[in-house]
Amino acid sequence: MVPFLPRIERAIEAALAPLDAADAPPLLRKALRHAVFPGGARFRPRLCLAVAMACGDPDPDLADRAAVAVELLHCASLVHDDLPCFDDSPLRRGRPSVHAAFGEPLGVLAGDALIVQAFGVLASPAGGVGDRLPALIGIIARAAGAPHGIAAGQAWESEPHPNLSAYHKAKTAALFVAAVEAGACAAGHAHQPWRLLGECLGEAYQIGDDLRDAVSSEAVLGKPVGRDQALMRPSAVATHGVAGAIRHLRALIERASASIPDLPAAPTLRALIEAEASRFVPKELLQAA
Amino acid sequence: MVPFLPRIERAIEAALAPLDAADAPPLLRKALRHAVFPGGARFRPRLCLAVAMACGDPDPDLADRAAVAVELLHCASLVHDDLPCFDDSPLRRGRPSVHAAFGEPLGVLAGDALIVQAFGVLASPAGGVGDRLPALIGIIARAAGAPHGIAAGQAWESEPHPNLSAYHKAKTAALFVAAVEAGACAAGHAHQPWRLLGECLGEAYQIGDDLRDAVSSEAVLGKPVGRDQALMRPSAVATHGVAGAIRHLRALIERASASIPDLPAAPTLRALIEAEASRFVPKELLQAA
Repeated sequence: MVPFLPRIERAIEAALAPLDAADAPPLLRKALRHAVFPGGARFRPRLCLAVAMACGDPDPDLADRAAVAVELLHCASLVHDDLPCFDDSPLRRGRPSVHAAFGEPLGVLAGDALIVQAFGVLASPAGGVGDRLPALIGIIARAAGAPHGIAAGQAWESEPHPNLSAYHKAKTAALFVAAVEAGACAAGHAHQPWRLLGECLGEAYQIGDDLRDAVSSEAVLGKPVGRDQALMRPSAVATHGVAGAIRHLRALIERASASIPDLPAAPTLRALIEAEASRFVPKELLQAA
Repeated sequence: MVPFLPRIERAIEAALAPLDAADAPPLLRKALRHAVFPGGARFRPRLCLAVAMACGDPDPDLADRAAVAVELLHCASLVHDDLPCFDDSPLRRGRPSVHAAFGEPLGVLAGDALIVQAFGVLASPAGGVGDRLPALIGIIARAAGAPHGIAAGQAWESEPHPNLSAYHKAKTAALFVAAVEAGACAAGHAHQPWRLLGECLGEAYQIGDDLRDAVSSEAVLGKPVGRDQALMRPSAVATHGVAGAIRHLRALIERASASIPDLPAAPTLRALIEAEASRFVPKELLQAA
C-alpha cells in the first residue's frame, strides 16, 4: 500500500491548509502541524484508499477526504493520549509530544481542532458528495466518539472493572473499521461487508502494538516502551505470552484476508493487506516466530 | 424564545440516547449526561430554532438536530474550558465541573465525545437532509475548530501577544454565528445573510459575561467569579468600565436586531431577540444602567 503515500500526504496537506489563516493563533497552527507532520506509517488512510481502489475508486477526491478524516482522528487520539492525565508521554514519533512541545492547553486544543477538521474535510465544498455524506459522517462519528469509538475506548481505562473486549474494540479496532468502511462508502459501495476486515486488522494491529511495547526499545519506536506493564494495562502479551500473541496475530490476519468481499480486485487487495500486516510483528521477533 | 425549551430538551435527549449503549463505559456515560443535563439557558439552540422558525421551519427534525449540534459543542467547550490546564474551575452551573466529579481523563474524553456527537447527530439517518448537510457540517466545523472557531479562540490564551478581536470572535461569537447560520440552513435558506446577527449577539453576550464575572457572585452564577481579573484575561469591563460596557452591549443588540433579514416573520424574531438579549445585562446592574 506504500504507493498511496504521496497521494495521502498531498490530501492531508490540502486539508490542513485552510487552518493556516493569517489571523489564526500561531502556536495552535504550529501544534496542529506538529501533530500531523511528519506522520507515522499512515497505515489507516492507506488502508482506506486500498479499499476504495478495490471498489473502483470512482471518486478519488471523496476517497482522499475519507482517508484524511481517518488519519486526523488518529493523530488527535495520539495527541490526547499523550496528555499528562493519560499516558503522560513526552515523546511521539521520536520527537516531543504536542503537549511537551507546546504546553498542555495546546495539546487539548490541537486534539479538539483535529477532531473537528476530520468532519470538516468530509464536507468540503470542493467535490460533490451526493448521498454518501451522511453515511461517511456516521462512520467517522462512530469510530471517534461514544459509545464504541476512540473516546469510549480510552474511557475504559478510567473504569474500575473494564470490559477488555469492548476496550480494545473501541480504542483501536474502531478506527480500522472506519478506515475500511469509509473507503468502501466513498467509492459508492455498501460499507457493512467490510466491517470484519477492519475488526480483524484492528485487533491484529493492537497485538503488534502490545508486542512492540513489550520487546522493542524507545530508540526504535520513538516513544516510551514498557508502558502497558508500568500502567498495568491489559495486553495480549500479558495474556498469551509472546509466542501465543504472535500466533493469535497471524490467525487474525488470515481471517482478515478471507473476509474481503468477492470483487475483481480482491486478490490484489488481499496481497497488499497480507504484506502490510506481516509487518505488525516487530522485526526483533521475526526469528523467534 | 422560552417556548422552544421543551422541544430542545427532547431533541438533546434523543441525541444522547444512542450513547447509552449497554456496553459503553459507564463513567463516560455519566460524565456525558453530567455535562449536558441540567443545561444552562440553552440560549444558542433556542436562537437556532428561532431563526429556523423565522425561515418557516419546513424541516423541524433537521432544525432540531442543528440546534442540538450547537448546544453539544457549547457543552464540550465548557467541559474543556474548566479543565485544570485552562480555568481549573471546580464548579459549573452550581455543581461540580465534569473533571471535578469524574476526574481529568473523563473531562477530556467527555468533551471529545460531545464534539464528535455534534457532527454525528447532524448525519443521523432519521431524517432526509437533502443537499443541506455539507453546508451544515461546514457551519458547525467552522464554529468549533481552527482557524476561527472555539478551539482557536481558546488557543489565543496561550499566545504571548493575543489578537483580542480574533480571540473574542472565535471563543464566543463563532458559536452564535453557527447557531443562526445553522437555523437558516436547516430551513433551506442561505445562511450568509444571518452572519451579522450572530456576530453582534455573540459580542453582546461576551460583554454580558464579562459584566457578570466582574460584579456577580459565585452563589448567583454557580461558577467562580472574578476569573478574568485573576487570570488577567481581556475583558470589556477592564477596557470600557461597567457603564461603558453596558452602553456597548446595548448598541450591539440594536445592531443585531436591525441586521435580521427582511422576512414576514422578522418582527416576531426581532422582538424575541431583543427580549432575550436584554437579559444579558446582569440584574444587579439594571438600576445602575
